[in-house]
Amino acid sequence: MPTSPSGPTIAEVGEHQVIREIMEAAPSRANGDDAAVLVSAQPNSRVVVSTDMLVQGRHFRFDWSTPREVGRKAIAQNFADIEAMGARPISALLALSAPVDTPVALIRQIAEGVEEQVEQFSAELVGGDLTAGENLVLAVTAVGSLGGNRRPLTIDAARPGQRLVAAGALGDSAAGLALLERYGRQVPPEFVAFRDAHTHPQIPPGRGMIARATGATAATDNSDGLIADLSTMARRSGVAIDLDPQAIAPSEQMVRLGEHLGIDPWHWVLSGGEDHTIVATTGGDVPSGFRSIGVVQRGSGVSVGGAIPTYQEGWLSF
Amino acid sequence: MPTSPSGPTIAEVGEHQVIREIMEAAPSRANGDDAAVLVSAQPNSRVVVSTDMLVQGRHFRFDWSTPREVGRKAIAQNFADIEAMGARPISALLALSAPVDTPVALIRQIAEGVEEQVEQFSAELVGGDLTAGENLVLAVTAVGSLGGNRRPLTIDAARPGQRLVAAGALGDSAAGLALLERYGRQVPPEFVAFRDAHTHPQIPPGRGMIARATGATAATDNSDGLIADLSTMARRSGVAIDLDPQAIAPSEQMVRLGEHLGIDPWHWVLSGGEDHTIVATTGGDVPSGFRSIGVVQRGSGVSVGGAIPTYQEGWLSF
Repeated sequence: MPTSPSGPTIAEVGEHQVIREIMEAAPSRANGDDAAVLVSAQPNSRVVVSTDMLVQGRHFRFDWSTPREVGRKAIAQNFADIEAMGARPISALLALSAPVDTPVALIRQIAEGVEEQVEQFSAELVGGDLTAGENLVLAVTAVGSLGGNRRPLTIDAARPGQRLVAAGALGDSAAGLALLERYGRQVPPEFVAFRDAHTHPQIPPGRGMIARATGATAATDNSDGLIADLSTMARRSGVAIDLDPQAIAPSEQMVRLGEHLGIDPWHWVLSGGEDHTIVATTGGDVPSGFRSIGVVQRGSGVSVGGAIPTYQEGWLSF
Repeated sequence: MPTSPSGPTIAEVGEHQVIREIMEAAPSRANGDDAAVLVSAQPNSRVVVSTDMLVQGRHFRFDWSTPREVGRKAIAQNFADIEAMGARPISALLALSAPVDTPVALIRQIAEGVEEQVEQFSAELVGGDLTAGENLVLAVTAVGSLGGNRRPLTIDAARPGQRLVAAGALGDSAAGLALLERYGRQVPPEFVAFRDAHTHPQIPPGRGMIARATGATAATDNSDGLIADLSTMARRSGVAIDLDPQAIAPSEQMVRLGEHLGIDPWHWVLSGGEDHTIVATTGGDVPSGFRSIGVVQRGSGVSVGGAIPTYQEGWLSF
């Protein structure tokens, strides 16, 4: 069941009308000139930027996700990269190419999803670009503000003796993807939360800032897969990371879904990405909203309870 | 004659190697984490951002342009938007989708072109994203720094009594496009400069900052067509703009090319975009590197020597 609207196409209403609809859905005083001047960056703060490209059919499908969910998730995954530096997302840019027969309502709904997510972070969509193309492609750039003198949270700054902490779900998005692959959008009601974790992951604003303020030094977000992302952190930091199997064990509901689908739920926990959960290392207390999931040690590589992880692969673009 | 290389494909060498090649071609200490922390923004400066998406076959063709030229131009057109705010480009982000059979050398050459152009501005490529897709699509985001307390140069700030000034060519890119449409890349030697104006327009760094520092209030770059872009400025500013026909008249060489191709060169001057020449309005002296091309008056619309322009249309995305 496709989730996307019909109605007049972008070719029928014309470029200017499409841009008007986007700017109505996601209004900003900074938008509408050659470039946007950001006013929300604090004096003496540093600027943090990140970009992601999403291609229809590869990163999203309209039989699985609504256009609004696609817009939300495009922002969420970029803002997670800003949060993973310990910074505050303040602005987003959206460049978009679309086939000329795309309904204008679909573009508008993507913009509405973008607005929902930027608003949740008290941020703004400040600019963009719109062009015709054979495929629907979204490119989102997120801009963040890093206040104060502390170092940003970098992927190469994990230190032996620190604890590893996480704020949010691990594997829920991958579990939802497995559901969508089996059922399409109409999944059994008891498992809807996993589907939603895939189609519009919830990223609580401010976790990265809190971690940075309370002594974390390294962070990343769970985008490509827990073991894959932590392996990068371990390699870049020159450390070993040992995960606590009890702390990351699949929830009861996830175990039930695994039985239902005949899939080992540990695969979702260890190899599943796209939760965009912030994972950080800290020598201080567990920051508010986080839980302890492991330790940083001397050595190299990532283990689970001292053993080689049963699943290690992660997402690759090709 | 295609200008693009062959050799191993991005699928053959794998995502990580392609990213390594891009980062070798365009090195930056800020690159390589979830997001890039910009260090070159001055304290108390404001941040200016802009984004553009370029689709193969629509915005560039490898039988007309080399991959290096495509990379250069992608940056140039974005940096022109930053310059048109009176700001200094400091960073760029490049998100890229490419078919899996794309030669890795082609991606590398695009990155080399990006580096050539960012270097000319003392800027850096600080991050990006790479994904598979059916089409080659580039999304560039430019970040600029706006120092001091003066207002940015906005498209709605032209005032009656000001003069209109321009820094660079008007119509050369459109003349080059007409040549490419006629001959492909092998154009008559006497006209090569026009082809090059289309395939890699030269944007002298700092013009926007100079205009802002010497009293300009409004600016844009000639991207969609001179009359189209100035019509936007006139409408948004609530003024009329009258162009001096002698100041914008086609050069002798452009007149010769017009005779050669059987095209009225005024079409290129008035309707041709993509020169990315900064056009500004100022109540002060003509800024260094600019020339006077018209006046701002009470009223509405754009005229040439008091008359309705013979060509008014501009570029539309669809």
